[in-house]
Amino acid sequence: MTAYDQLMAYQRQTEALAQVAGRLGWDQETVMPRGAADQRSEEVAALEGVLHARRSDPRVAGWLAAAEPRDATARAATRLIRRSFDRATRVPADLAQEIARVTSMAQGIWASARAADDVAAFLPTLAEVIALKRAEAAALAQGNDPYDALLDDYEPGATAASLGAMFERMRPRLVALRAAVLGAGHQPQALQGHFGSDGQLRMARDLAATFGYDWNRGRLDLAVHPFSSGGGSDARITTRVVESEPFNCFYSTIHETGHACYELGIDPDYALTPLGAGVSMGVHESQSRIYENQLGRSPAFTGWMFGQMRERFGDFGIATPQAFCATVNRVQPGYIRTEADEVHYNLHVMLRFDLERALIRGDLDVTDLEAAWNARFAADFGVAVDRPSHGMLQDVHWSVGLFGYFPTYTLGNVYAGCLHQALRAALPDLDADLAQGDTASATGWLRENVQRFGGLYQPREVIAKACGFDPTEGPLLDYLEAKFAAIYQL
Amino acid sequence: MTAYDQLMAYQRQTEALAQVAGRLGWDQETVMPRGAADQRSEEVAALEGVLHARRSDPRVAGWLAAAEPRDATARAATRLIRRSFDRATRVPADLAQEIARVTSMAQGIWASARAADDVAAFLPTLAEVIALKRAEAAALAQGNDPYDALLDDYEPGATAASLGAMFERMRPRLVALRAAVLGAGHQPQALQGHFGSDGQLRMARDLAATFGYDWNRGRLDLAVHPFSSGGGSDARITTRVVESEPFNCFYSTIHETGHACYELGIDPDYALTPLGAGVSMGVHESQSRIYENQLGRSPAFTGWMFGQMRERFGDFGIATPQAFCATVNRVQPGYIRTEADEVHYNLHVMLRFDLERALIRGDLDVTDLEAAWNARFAADFGVAVDRPSHGMLQDVHWSVGLFGYFPTYTLGNVYAGCLHQALRAALPDLDADLAQGDTASATGWLRENVQRFGGLYQPREVIAKACGFDPTEGPLLDYLEAKFAAIYQL
Repeated sequence: MTAYDQLMAYQRQTEALAQVAGRLGWDQETVMPRGAADQRSEEVAALEGVLHARRSDPRVAGWLAAAEPRDATARAATRLIRRSFDRATRVPADLAQEIARVTSMAQGIWASARAADDVAAFLPTLAEVIALKRAEAAALAQGNDPYDALLDDYEPGATAASLGAMFERMRPRLVALRAAVLGAGHQPQALQGHFGSDGQLRMARDLAATFGYDWNRGRLDLAVHPFSSGGGSDARITTRVVESEPFNCFYSTIHETGHACYELGIDPDYALTPLGAGVSMGVHESQSRIYENQLGRSPAFTGWMFGQMRERFGDFGIATPQAFCATVNRVQPGYIRTEADEVHYNLHVMLRFDLERALIRGDLDVTDLEAAWNARFAADFGVAVDRPSHGMLQDVHWSVGLFGYFPTYTLGNVYAGCLHQALRAALPDLDADLAQGDTASATGWLRENVQRFGGLYQPREVIAKACGFDPTEGPLLDYLEAKFAAIYQL
Repeated sequence: MTAYDQLMAYQRQTEALAQVAGRLGWDQETVMPRGAADQRSEEVAALEGVLHARRSDPRVAGWLAAAEPRDATARAATRLIRRSFDRATRVPADLAQEIARVTSMAQGIWASARAADDVAAFLPTLAEVIALKRAEAAALAQGNDPYDALLDDYEPGATAASLGAMFERMRPRLVALRAAVLGAGHQPQALQGHFGSDGQLRMARDLAATFGYDWNRGRLDLAVHPFSSGGGSDARITTRVVESEPFNCFYSTIHETGHACYELGIDPDYALTPLGAGVSMGVHESQSRIYENQLGRSPAFTGWMFGQMRERFGDFGIATPQAFCATVNRVQPGYIRTEADEVHYNLHVMLRFDLERALIRGDLDVTDLEAAWNARFAADFGVAVDRPSHGMLQDVHWSVGLFGYFPTYTLGNVYAGCLHQALRAALPDLDADLAQGDTASATGWLRENVQRFGGLYQPREVIAKACGFDPTEGPLLDYLEAKFAAIYQL
């Protein structure tokens, strides 16, 4: 066996064990008995220990040094393994363990603080998490920008400087769009009525199938916070049901279907190799968002959905497909990111991005975080935060150390905007399909131009290849302005 | 840290990883998408590789040599780790891999052969499995009896010679009881009617609760072949539903509840140590069987169950608790072990035990196996096997290399007989409780006298301590003869 073959045989088992860790996470969020939590944390820690030891095994360095990759696929695979090895070896083991210990504890402290709207109860722990993440970032950065070193875990190749510049270009247009929409005389109707749990879940399953989800390699379950999980030939989705708000269930399902279809759409030859997973959080989010928004909330598709909902749930107080499309795309002021519409969503993300960069740089102290959050919120959203659980305590991310993750949400939206422009150019008759509830041409285009490549190209590279142009915020903003001008008769 | 502390810290992670393997097995049999099977087999193999490497790690030998266990618990823990290390290191790695490869493949070949009633299609593979298991047994036995070395994996300390002698004492009494029961003029009624799936599952859940199952640390799902899985604070059960045969669902549930309650009843201080799991297959089966049969099929408990079923399912053609008890305990000729009643069950096991001993010894060639099976079946059961799927192709065990497992089923029944005798002596008013659907005194006695010890004592030792006498077949046979004499008016 050549060094490359040895490396890949070894890596295959590491990838298989990483899949096992994914199964364990799915189990924990869907079916695990409540009383199993403490034991489960030991099970997860033991498996993570095995994975870390494998990723940082000195033999990997030796094989990498001796490997002679023969083609682009092999070069991409060795590049990804080297990246994983570098990350695993640059952070001292005792620091990694301390981060695992503190963030595991911090999540519970954050949840209690949020429930009690008590910022002070969370600040000492948050300060500890930030200090540890700054140490980790310094170890990873090797003299470069520490925040970039954290960001790189979720979005290889992205930099805070370029994302920050793009966000600054986006922000005024979004703030203006928000003001115009909320200031318009027109306001779409709300849904009325009761939408039974069984009926919602049946429709959720049908929506997943409509978007091409492969039930032979997946399943749908309930979870408190919907997520997708796994890859290769086992990529599962979850949703939740609120009986008065069926869109919550339906669009969570379509969103997670987008994530899962990305994993399931990857070239099967890449299974259990470093190329066999979505290449970054941003590209992943581009798939979930384009399924959910540009396709799932389009006038053509919502027209079909209107008929489906009338058939299944009877009269729900909305008379026409046009009115229904407006309701699906209703823009409402709100404090909570996860409930935000397409106009507000990216403003939430930018707020967090600027604050977390300042925290990691050391320019913002945690004691000043609440004031900074509330000031920025008032500036961008036009209202004052009424309580910390609607403000800086709303998201789990910082408590578990996910610094650098937030910007990938907006990057995903930007990528989705680019892909949507290219998709529309390639498929001029798409609306006729969507109006029939047929997404095959669109999802097929995405599979062919994005999904199948897995980790073969760098994130921006795969989007640029698919679109024929370098990704930029323009298409997303154009799409948002046109869409909401039409709905709100601006 | 002392060598003992280092050993136990290391072992704790191994135990946690073994629990992960258990979760993966549960997932596979209950919720895994059909198309995930191939990838899953790689995931399982990677995790088994990690476990094998940990169990055979040279550092374990060093710690074992240097460890100075301070008390009985520590001595038991080191004894169990040494046993695991010896088993893991005596079998050459290439042989272990070859066994894993061949048995994984053999299971599919067996399933197809059974479906087609085609013995010849299975024989070459079976011969290969047997050859490999004989090699493994020779490596493990180190000059002692090879079959005992295989048996030892499931029932530490048991020998084929002593089990064989006991089975020879049991067999004539069971054959005679079977003949008497089937020859009696009296024959209990069969159940009539339709028992809806939801209603069966609701009653199954209530039965598990009745037997003390802790829902905070477990759950009930459907599986093709019911099983229990996991331990510590996560021990799950499964059942199946056949709408015309509710006893299938109910008694599978009670049986698996017995297994799970054993795991959940172990002293929590033993969690994630070698003492934190049921000590042997025989002791495990004693718990599932005493829950299912000596308690669950007793006249007192079936009286309560009769009322429950009338309330839930209305009239099902049986008028009195006495007639219902007879129906629950109906003895019927049959080819299939897993469907056998208490009278027939052990005869099935003894047949397999004698044949598999001969196969491992080399006294029986696979080409003669079908004839040997059919001859023995005719002798013990009084009828001819009509097709291989009703004969030597019925069980999965041999295809996956489980030689030495079968006898633990009957040993479990023997242990259950002993425990039942002791339990009745300790709880003279038990029937009054059971008649109310209250099993707390019985299950509490079992938890206190058997379950909580986990791996602290040797299998026979824990039964002897609980009963106050050395375990023997007498109590089981006395119980069976008395019970069926009453029901069949012999």
